[in-house]
Amino acid sequence: MGSDPAFKGETIGIVGLGLIGGSVGLALRDPGRTILGFDASEASARVARDRLCIDRLVSFEEVLQADVVFLAVPPDVTVDTAERAMAAAGESTVVTDCSSVKSEVAKWAQKGKHARFVPGHPMAGHEKGGATYASSWMFRGARWILTPVRATESASVRSVEALVKAMGAKPVRIEAAAHDRHVATVSHLPHVLAAVLVNLGESLESVDAAGGSWRDMTRVGGVDPDLWTQIMMQNRVELAKVLRDYEGNLLEMRTALESDDREGLRAILERAHKLKAAQAPAEVKNPLRKGKR
Amino acid sequence: MGSDPAFKGETIGIVGLGLIGGSVGLALRDPGRTILGFDASEASARVARDRLCIDRLVSFEEVLQADVVFLAVPPDVTVDTAERAMAAAGESTVVTDCSSVKSEVAKWAQKGKHARFVPGHPMAGHEKGGATYASSWMFRGARWILTPVRATESASVRSVEALVKAMGAKPVRIEAAAHDRHVATVSHLPHVLAAVLVNLGESLESVDAAGGSWRDMTRVGGVDPDLWTQIMMQNRVELAKVLRDYEGNLLEMRTALESDDREGLRAILERAHKLKAAQAPAEVKNPLRKGKR
Repeated sequence: MGSDPAFKGETIGIVGLGLIGGSVGLALRDPGRTILGFDASEASARVARDRLCIDRLVSFEEVLQADVVFLAVPPDVTVDTAERAMAAAGESTVVTDCSSVKSEVAKWAQKGKHARFVPGHPMAGHEKGGATYASSWMFRGARWILTPVRATESASVRSVEALVKAMGAKPVRIEAAAHDRHVATVSHLPHVLAAVLVNLGESLESVDAAGGSWRDMTRVGGVDPDLWTQIMMQNRVELAKVLRDYEGNLLEMRTALESDDREGLRAILERAHKLKAAQAPAEVKNPLRKGKR
Repeated sequence: MGSDPAFKGETIGIVGLGLIGGSVGLALRDPGRTILGFDASEASARVARDRLCIDRLVSFEEVLQADVVFLAVPPDVTVDTAERAMAAAGESTVVTDCSSVKSEVAKWAQKGKHARFVPGHPMAGHEKGGATYASSWMFRGARWILTPVRATESASVRSVEALVKAMGAKPVRIEAAAHDRHVATVSHLPHVLAAVLVNLGESLESVDAAGGSWRDMTRVGGVDPDLWTQIMMQNRVELAKVLRDYEGNLLEMRTALESDDREGLRAILERAHKLKAAQAPAEVKNPLRKGKR
């Protein structure tokens, strides 16, 4: 880190001290850095401070004087918070957000020509929210997607990338629209499927007699309804599209079952078997994923 | 174990030395027991022997002289194997099977008045098959469902239950039809959803930039197509029914997204959130589940 003379990351600011903000703090804490935190909720701020996610609680204005500021607030208030942040930011402060849907905030950044704002999204989380569940290793091995726009300054992107790497994550640059299509499939759809499965389980007498597949397939089924309503609604066009595709494939499977089409069913399972095997090596390379197995 | 004078479990037989048969052997190995194994495939038998899942490889006839014999063969050959097993079984030998769908084998047991045959199903497994992945702790904390029929002798059920407990599993008695309805929801449906999700991922450039939800929701998506075609086809009526229900709930979710119905979407997620929280305590009680998190 110290070898890059262009990099400024001695003081880090975090706005929003929940699961993600708290984890950013824990992941970046280092004798060479000062981590300043702000949360509009005093209770949340206290949890983050008590868990030592930050060095000091400061005002919104003061947090914006840091070298790099992470906005880790709910999707619905991200653009508004970003707007206020850029108005209050120090002359050389770089600001990045952590929201799961990127088109809206990217559009805002381009429209306002915010050179030192870098739209971002860490691909990591936990089924429970709050700094209580924050951890220093949450981003280790995970991708951290950045969706800079034309107005974004390269140096700002590089500053964020350096910190992302310091947290053990792998920065990836893609376009905001491509990001939103991607997460609709790999993240938002799985959350929809899990929630619908949990709800179907209501008719069961008990889920005690369930194996590992039920446990894994419902893990993210109970996520925070407020947060996920915001996420899914912001990405509702892309999410509805992949849901349509998914429903089509599901119908194909049910048709095979109902028409006793053994070969048809087998072909679907065979295709999944081969695809899954092809996807496996990338998973093994990821140390966090391996460790969590 | 030794305190129950009625219990006979000094010699255990296993027919089919794959993931389940191999794990039964490892879970029951004890200085006080002899584990005999048989597999029609020499290669599979060798793997199980080399991994010390059994004490000795013997013939089909000899394995059937054990006190209790576990049939751990694919669903499609379970009834046929059970028929041959009961014809070859020793005078007091108890036979149980491990097939994931129970109606067919239960019907066969009742029709043939097989007093010493106990239809069973351990609710545990692994996304990869074969004795290579067998483990002594696979059944620890899991439910092991038994679906005795009218013809089944109580003493036989108790013998199997004693061994199930010795493996660390919890025996549960329910009717075969209720079992098949139950597993359609808690096991077969999750496997369908995972396979369909993996197939949808084919359109992605890469699943590298995916978080934990994708990983968990696709874990069982690549299971053995031969085995799972058999399982799903045997339970196709119940599975198609729950798939219809699931599709209905999924459509409700998509409709909320497409009509920008924020409250509708939130209500679905809220319901899942509450249900999941209510299901949580049972999961924590299960030591295996806790350990695998």
